[in-house]
Amino acid sequence: MAQINENFIKIPATYLFSEIAKRVTQHKDQYPDAPVIRMGIGDVSLPLPDASVDAIIKAAEEQRNESTFRGYGPEQGYSFLREAVVKNDFSSRGIPIETDEIFISDGAKSDTGNIGDIFNINNRVAITDPSYPVYVDTNAMAGRAGEPTKTGEWTNLVYLPCNSENGFVPELPDEVVDLVYLCYPNNPTGTTLTREQLTVWVEYARENQAIILFDAAYEAFITEENVPHSIYEIEGAREVAIEFRSFSKTAGFTGTRCGYTVVPKDLMGYSENGDKVSINKLWNRRQCTKFNGTSYVVQRAAEATYSEEGKKQVKALIDFYTENARIIREGLLKAGYTIFGGVNAPYVWAKAPKGMSSWGYFDYLLNEKNIVTTPGAGFGASGEGYVRFSAFGSRENTIEAMKRLEI
Amino acid sequence: MAQINENFIKIPATYLFSEIAKRVTQHKDQYPDAPVIRMGIGDVSLPLPDASVDAIIKAAEEQRNESTFRGYGPEQGYSFLREAVVKNDFSSRGIPIETDEIFISDGAKSDTGNIGDIFNINNRVAITDPSYPVYVDTNAMAGRAGEPTKTGEWTNLVYLPCNSENGFVPELPDEVVDLVYLCYPNNPTGTTLTREQLTVWVEYARENQAIILFDAAYEAFITEENVPHSIYEIEGAREVAIEFRSFSKTAGFTGTRCGYTVVPKDLMGYSENGDKVSINKLWNRRQCTKFNGTSYVVQRAAEATYSEEGKKQVKALIDFYTENARIIREGLLKAGYTIFGGVNAPYVWAKAPKGMSSWGYFDYLLNEKNIVTTPGAGFGASGEGYVRFSAFGSRENTIEAMKRLEI
Repeated sequence: MAQINENFIKIPATYLFSEIAKRVTQHKDQYPDAPVIRMGIGDVSLPLPDASVDAIIKAAEEQRNESTFRGYGPEQGYSFLREAVVKNDFSSRGIPIETDEIFISDGAKSDTGNIGDIFNINNRVAITDPSYPVYVDTNAMAGRAGEPTKTGEWTNLVYLPCNSENGFVPELPDEVVDLVYLCYPNNPTGTTLTREQLTVWVEYARENQAIILFDAAYEAFITEENVPHSIYEIEGAREVAIEFRSFSKTAGFTGTRCGYTVVPKDLMGYSENGDKVSINKLWNRRQCTKFNGTSYVVQRAAEATYSEEGKKQVKALIDFYTENARIIREGLLKAGYTIFGGVNAPYVWAKAPKGMSSWGYFDYLLNEKNIVTTPGAGFGASGEGYVRFSAFGSRENTIEAMKRLEI
Repeated sequence: MAQINENFIKIPATYLFSEIAKRVTQHKDQYPDAPVIRMGIGDVSLPLPDASVDAIIKAAEEQRNESTFRGYGPEQGYSFLREAVVKNDFSSRGIPIETDEIFISDGAKSDTGNIGDIFNINNRVAITDPSYPVYVDTNAMAGRAGEPTKTGEWTNLVYLPCNSENGFVPELPDEVVDLVYLCYPNNPTGTTLTREQLTVWVEYARENQAIILFDAAYEAFITEENVPHSIYEIEGAREVAIEFRSFSKTAGFTGTRCGYTVVPKDLMGYSENGDKVSINKLWNRRQCTKFNGTSYVVQRAAEATYSEEGKKQVKALIDFYTENARIIREGLLKAGYTIFGGVNAPYVWAKAPKGMSSWGYFDYLLNEKNIVTTPGAGFGASGEGYVRFSAFGSRENTIEAMKRLEI
C-alpha cells in the first residue's frame, strides 16, 4: 500500500493568496467599476532588461545550429555565469568566494525549499517571524517542524519574533538551534540588519556549530552604508552560512527563473558521530542527482545582467522600484501611519491603526481605498497587526494609491 | 550542531562517468591521434527545432515590453502548454487526461527525483535492474533504500532483474511492494514492454494499492504497434500510475530544460490510518511550495513542438536517431554481437562477448576500436556483462563506428 508522507496532510491549506483573491473578487462583484490597485503582490511589473532579452535571442540562435548547439550543461551551472557572479557580486566587494562555491539554479524558491534535503530531520530550526512561508512549509513537509498548533505555529520550530517592539531585530533564541533562516533585506517587513546585528548571528552560529540559511534575494535594493550585501562580509561567515540569491527582483526574472546558492567550501555540517562533512559536497551531490542544470538560454540572460549595458538597465529597474518605495513611505507617513522598511527593500510594512487586525486593515484599505495589500498575519503570528505594501507596481498606480490615503 | 542527512554519506560516489572520462583520457594520452567516437552519452547532438527557437525569440521579445511582459507564472505551468500536452500526447491517442493533471517542470530528472517528497519513507520500493541511477540514489537520499551492501545494492530496495534470460521483462516481486519504478522504452536497455506485459503491472498495483512511477521519457521513439506510448493506455492505470515525460530526447531540450508529470485525479495514496489521499493534490502542494514554475520562454519553446511545423521538425529528429539506432543494430549484428533494444528506443544494449565483463568490453571497444560506450554495470548489478550504445551521435560517426566493428 503506497503510503503518503504524512507531514503533507498536517500543513494547513495555503489560504492567504486565495483568501485575498476571494475578497478582491467579492469587492469587484459589488463595485464593478472600483478602480482597484494591487499592491499586495511580490511580482515585478517592469519588463526584462534589453541586455537579457538580447542574450536569450543570441543563445536561442546558437541552439538552432549543430555547431553551436548545447545539450546537457553542468548541473552546477555554466562557468561563464558562475564566474560573472563571483566577479560582480563578491570579488567587487572584496568578498572571497570561488567559482565552485556557486550553484546556479532555477530560482531561490527551489533552493530555499530543497536545501533541507541535505540536513537531518532532527535539527532544531529557528525562523524569523514573520517570514517567507516557504521556510516553514518545507520544514513541515520534511517532518522537521513537528505538529501544527491551533494558532498555526509548529511545535518544533523556534520562532524569532520581529516586530516594532524589538526594532525587527531577531533576538538570539533561549534554546540552542541548529539551522537558522534569516532573510535580509527582509521579506515581508522590508527591514534590514546592520553589520553588527548580523555579526551577532554569525558568532552565535560559530559557537553552536549552527548553520545560517541566509536569503539575500533583495540585496540589490540596499541603499544604506551599514547594511551588508552578503553575509560573507561578516568575518567567519564562510564557516557557518549558505547564501541564496535571485535574479527575480533584481532583473525582473520572476518568469524567466534563475537564481544561485553560495555554499562555501569552509562550511561543515556534522554527522551523528560528530565527523565534519563538507556541505558544499552534499549540495553538489543533491543537485547532480535531482537537478539537471538551468536552461542555457536563461543562464545567458542572467550573465547579461552583468554586462556594462545590463548593469545600467538593472540599476534603472532597482531605482524605479526604490522610488516607488519612497513614494509609498512618504504617502503612508503623510497619512499618519506607522511604517517600517522600504528604504533598503521594495516592501513597506505598515502597522494597522487603532489595534486593527491584519485582515481588518486589509479590508479597510480594499473597501474604502480600493487598494489591495497583503495581510501581515499571512507571514506568521508576529505579522498580525501589519500589512505589506509592495513597491513593484507601476509609478502611476503607486502615486494614485498614495493620493487616496491622503486625509 | 547542524547535522547532515546521514543517508547522503552512505551513497557511494558516482564514479561511472568520471571513470569513463578517466579511461578515455588515459587512452588519448597514450594515442593522441586516436579517432575516438563517443557512443556512451545520452545527450543529443542535433540542434533545437526551428519552431522552438522561433518561439523562444518571440517570447523573449514579449518579455522586453511592459504590455506583454510575464512575471511569475503558474507553478503547474501555463495553460497554453498544459492544453497542448493534453491534446497532442493524450487526447489524440484517446487517452482521457485533463489539463489539471499535467504539471510542467524543468525536466524529468527533477520530477523523478523530487516525487519521493510526497511519499512515506517506509514504502517498499521496487526498481528494475539495470535502471537510471536517479531512482536508486534519490530513494537512498530519502532513507527509503536502507543500507548499501558490498555489492552496491541497497538492503531495502527490491530489484527487478531485466536480462536476456527473462527477455528484459521484469517479473512481479515475491514480496509486496508499494512503489514501482518502470521506465519504458527502457534506459539503458532500449527494450520495451508490450501492452499485455504492462497490464500485468497495472493489475499488480491495483491489487496491492501500489503506485507505479512510469518514466516515458523515450516514448517518441516507439515504432512498433503493440508498445504502449503511455501507461494510461492500460485500463485502470489512472488509479495507480504517475507518468513522467520529457522534451529532452524528443525535441533536443537537454539544455533547454522542460518536461512534465501526469498525476491523475483518480490516483490515491494512503495515510497511516488507511484514508485515501489525492496524490494530485499532494504533488500540487509540493510544486507550489518548492518550485516556481518553468521559464516562460522555455514553455513557449515546448508548446512550439506541437505546432504543425514543430511536429514535422521533431519527427525529423526522431527519425534521424532511429536510423542511427538501426545502423548500430545492423552493425553490431553483422559483427556477431548479441544485442537488444534499439527498435523503439535510441539505445542498443550489447552483450559482452565470451563472458567478458562490462568494463572489459568497454576497454576492448575503447582500446581496439576507439569507441566509447557506457558499461552496463554502471546501471545496476543486472547490467553487468553488457554495454550501452547510444544512437544520439552524428550519422558520420555512427557509420564509422560500425565500420570499425566489421570483422
